[in-house]
Amino acid sequence: MSNDQFFTATALHSWKQVVGRYSDGIAPRTDEELQKRVAPGKNRLYYLLGHLTAVHDRLFPLLGIGERLRPDLDAAFISNPDGTLPDPLSGAELKALWNEINTKLTAALERLTPQQWLEKHTAVSDEDFAKDPTRNRLAVVLSRTNHLSYHTGQAVLAK
Amino acid sequence: MSNDQFFTATALHSWKQVVGRYSDGIAPRTDEELQKRVAPGKNRLYYLLGHLTAVHDRLFPLLGIGERLRPDLDAAFISNPDGTLPDPLSGAELKALWNEINTKLTAALERLTPQQWLEKHTAVSDEDFAKDPTRNRLAVVLSRTNHLSYHTGQAVLAK
Repeated sequence: MSNDQFFTATALHSWKQVVGRYSDGIAPRTDEELQKRVAPGKNRLYYLLGHLTAVHDRLFPLLGIGERLRPDLDAAFISNPDGTLPDPLSGAELKALWNEINTKLTAALERLTPQQWLEKHTAVSDEDFAKDPTRNRLAVVLSRTNHLSYHTGQAVLAK
Repeated sequence: MSNDQFFTATALHSWKQVVGRYSDGIAPRTDEELQKRVAPGKNRLYYLLGHLTAVHDRLFPLLGIGERLRPDLDAAFISNPDGTLPDPLSGAELKALWNEINTKLTAALERLTPQQWLEKHTAVSDEDFAKDPTRNRLAVVLSRTNHLSYHTGQAVLAK
């Protein structure tokens, strides 16, 4: 492997590890348990799962690697806070969707060449990218990996 | 810049962003506020800050980039859970130490060449590294960046 390939393999390994850790924590939770809150008055596990699912679904167009599976979920899980809209899916359906989206995402990321990891993501203009070339696909994936870790830290607090 | 340099610059940018976000959240907290818990019965903000400070201090020897500043803090913040030992420092002292350690760490990371980012960290044997060359310095930094995000997600819950 070249240096380039080691860099992308290491970043991808971190992504898979963090997705795997959260998925393992969520897998055994029943629909009832997903209704628990991470702390009094804070988000339900169900809402966090929906939020993370919608945010990861948005990575397909943001990284230019495919079409979204469920753009309709943004209203319940991104545009509005927990409890605003009726829950659009059961907990079991949401868990299945989370797994489906991440399996497809990871497969698409594995197909990227090192050069493609360094290309700009679709939400930055050519002009802005010329000024700051770290606004690339890798930056987005590192950012979303950390976003997932942030909410994983919250999810483990639910009692 | 070469591809190698873009990869390391992007990873370093993510590290700085996550350290900056947590530091900004902690900076205005008084010693009294640092005694708040992230959720009922869970860690105090003070303990989390000490834990993160000690874990980041350990990066100097783990990455082979310097000596630890305060190995004596492991007992209070890594080997034992919150509330086991007396608090070794005031909140203000701990915040100053957090900033000092991260300033030195970031400066040391900025001096690493791309090749050095891909070298093994000091806790993996030559043999194991030959089997899995993603056990490099970059993997450690990505892992600690996510560890910090994990606890940042908890810290924002404290009321």
